[in-house]
Amino acid sequence: MNKLEEYLNAHELSEMHPSDIAKILKQLDDSHFAAALKLIPKDLIGDVALALPDRYFDDVVENLSIDELGHAVGELESDDQVDFLQGLEDIDENIASQVFDTLHEDDKKEIIKLQTYNDNEAGAYMQLEIFTADRNEVVHDVIKRFAELRRAKHIENIQNLFITSSDRKLLYTIGLDDLLIFDFKKTLIENIDDSEDSFEPKKAQDRENIRDVVRYFEEYDLSVMPIVNAYGVLLGRITSDDIYDIINEHATEQMYNLAGVDDDAEEYDEVYKAGKKRASWLGINLLTAIFASLVIGLFSETLQSMVALAVLMPIVASMGGNAGTQTLTVVVRQLALGDISQGDAMRIIKKEVLIALMNGLVFAIVMGVIASIWFGIKMLGLVIALSMIINLFIAGFFGAAIPLFLKKMEIDPAIGSAVILTTVTDVVGFFSFLGLATYMLL
Amino acid sequence: MNKLEEYLNAHELSEMHPSDIAKILKQLDDSHFAAALKLIPKDLIGDVALALPDRYFDDVVENLSIDELGHAVGELESDDQVDFLQGLEDIDENIASQVFDTLHEDDKKEIIKLQTYNDNEAGAYMQLEIFTADRNEVVHDVIKRFAELRRAKHIENIQNLFITSSDRKLLYTIGLDDLLIFDFKKTLIENIDDSEDSFEPKKAQDRENIRDVVRYFEEYDLSVMPIVNAYGVLLGRITSDDIYDIINEHATEQMYNLAGVDDDAEEYDEVYKAGKKRASWLGINLLTAIFASLVIGLFSETLQSMVALAVLMPIVASMGGNAGTQTLTVVVRQLALGDISQGDAMRIIKKEVLIALMNGLVFAIVMGVIASIWFGIKMLGLVIALSMIINLFIAGFFGAAIPLFLKKMEIDPAIGSAVILTTVTDVVGFFSFLGLATYMLL
Repeated sequence: MNKLEEYLNAHELSEMHPSDIAKILKQLDDSHFAAALKLIPKDLIGDVALALPDRYFDDVVENLSIDELGHAVGELESDDQVDFLQGLEDIDENIASQVFDTLHEDDKKEIIKLQTYNDNEAGAYMQLEIFTADRNEVVHDVIKRFAELRRAKHIENIQNLFITSSDRKLLYTIGLDDLLIFDFKKTLIENIDDSEDSFEPKKAQDRENIRDVVRYFEEYDLSVMPIVNAYGVLLGRITSDDIYDIINEHATEQMYNLAGVDDDAEEYDEVYKAGKKRASWLGINLLTAIFASLVIGLFSETLQSMVALAVLMPIVASMGGNAGTQTLTVVVRQLALGDISQGDAMRIIKKEVLIALMNGLVFAIVMGVIASIWFGIKMLGLVIALSMIINLFIAGFFGAAIPLFLKKMEIDPAIGSAVILTTVTDVVGFFSFLGLATYMLL
Repeated sequence: MNKLEEYLNAHELSEMHPSDIAKILKQLDDSHFAAALKLIPKDLIGDVALALPDRYFDDVVENLSIDELGHAVGELESDDQVDFLQGLEDIDENIASQVFDTLHEDDKKEIIKLQTYNDNEAGAYMQLEIFTADRNEVVHDVIKRFAELRRAKHIENIQNLFITSSDRKLLYTIGLDDLLIFDFKKTLIENIDDSEDSFEPKKAQDRENIRDVVRYFEEYDLSVMPIVNAYGVLLGRITSDDIYDIINEHATEQMYNLAGVDDDAEEYDEVYKAGKKRASWLGINLLTAIFASLVIGLFSETLQSMVALAVLMPIVASMGGNAGTQTLTVVVRQLALGDISQGDAMRIIKKEVLIALMNGLVFAIVMGVIASIWFGIKMLGLVIALSMIINLFIAGFFGAAIPLFLKKMEIDPAIGSAVILTTVTDVVGFFSFLGLATYMLL
């Protein structure tokens, strides 16, 4: 008997939250997984599939028929329908197309509408299920209509009433907490006119960048935001649960970009796909490493005459790389969070260079003393100390300047900046150390 | 005339959102900043100060008297009051204490209550302003009471009604959308009994880890969550806007930890504080770099007899470090997001080792050919190829195993893992390359 069946004895599956069902499924091996899937109420399968990590999506699809998949999609809200179909397409376009054909005409229309948006547009994340009322409707009637829609489960998880004009343009957003204190016998607009509050909606346009929309949620402490088109016509809403996911996704993307990893390729369980994407960054790294080696090659004779230099040179490069990565990470992240604004560039570079020089000096002295004792050559200590100060200065400057420059060029500062930076710190590290050694020691 | 004054001509400041005021303030220089601060309605200053990046907090405090600060704190919600006072304490405990003394007795009590929680406990993030009702209250009366509290602005941004027993234990959570469809003449419990829905609250305990609470919000798509004590007594609520901040903070912390940066030290504008924290990680890096150099030192004679080895050896270490960082970042992030569960360790290590071997083979061949042509020594190509396969295999294995092991030991896998990893890839890189060279070339 598998865990899900055990659980069934104690719980009513249909009363469980899809996320809880997903948690149990995750712990099952393949054969039990398929059996357990059959036990899940058909209405919940879509939500369960979306609550599972992406790599399980294949397993769900494999174990369901086209009709079952169609039913699962039909039970989802519009934005989730699009996500589910997108997942299907990634696996097999043919299945996706067949499932799409089984859907209700209204669902099809909504899906087509939502699929016109790019991943970075607010429209791609909106739900079309909203509750709207005309400004001239009496509050009592609005509530009655709401109750009917709510009981029929046509709308769920409602926190706001959107008030539109006759041409469906969004005029006001009214929290249900405000609606409750309205005079039920008056019309909406009469209540609004009587009130001191403004009810002016914080809204976003469907073609707006989703990053900006996330920022609105964060800045204005929103839990729901209406989305309108360029003419102000109300199209849908974005809710806080989408925002959690998007914040996490963006942070993951940024972290992965800094490390030279592609977030899309890593989502699935395919070794080949992830490996290929990683290889492209490793390839670039190989080129820059060869470039750094060419710099070392310039000093072959110096190295030949003093092997201690070969022993010590990675230290200078490593310290520069690490200090630079510290700076780079802080600047990239603060840019993403909006803590650094346009006019801040000079302030940031100054700060980072100062920190770099401060730490450069400390570690230059430490390493200078160590090196001169280790190899019994005083001047060698001076050479490594000077080159460390130079390299940490460069690390601080470029660690700040590279992402600031990329941002100014409207390129994502997380992509590629780490490779550029370590190339700089490697080259400067090797060149300054071996160059100074050639000049001062030989 | 500064920007804020210009803006004043067009807008009513008191109608502006604190975040919008903060945005204008951010663009002002010091002298205008102080002047602008005086123009902000006293009721909004607290919210504006919290909406500004942390480094501006000093400037706000400097420009306000104790009484003004006290008034600003008094206008905030309980969780924000604690944040504000914490900010004050970080600057000057004496000022914080004086401001605290000016507060209303109720505010003081609430603040003391909230301050007993650690940063990682759910209680530290809750708001105490909630709307509760007894299960035997008639809906109509509840709404009337709500309207009064709402009009008096004692409660704001309400989405749920919390229903408690006579001993204040949380029994049910009712969305306002559900309340609207209740029979207003019946009591709450009668309505609940009549309904098919369960109204069982998704709640968290005040001493629970905030990371788990964030996960509940994400998994159950919540926008509000009630917080209870160990006995089930309702204490407060956490709202979606806190969750946005916490998700961002945790992602920042993780990113910074991976780069050897302390997120608390970076928040403020103090170069010395941030620099000192970064220096401690650079110090550890210096030790590991010296350790790697000692490994190189073992092969002094080999290096002396073939200087090409010194030229090429950083490539092996660099490729290992980069491949390992890719793996490490993916594993650390997926652990944080809950995409990797307890039983997944072997699957992840297998996957990562496979990717590492795949890419190791590709780049070993590429680099082997390049090296043998570059220096005209075929065996040198073989040596670097073999050492790259070894080092990338080690990078993949340890890049996955280190964070999985730290997680198992209940240590944050983001802290220190990068340093351990690059030590391993440097040492293995230098040792395998120079060791194979000594064995095969001399």
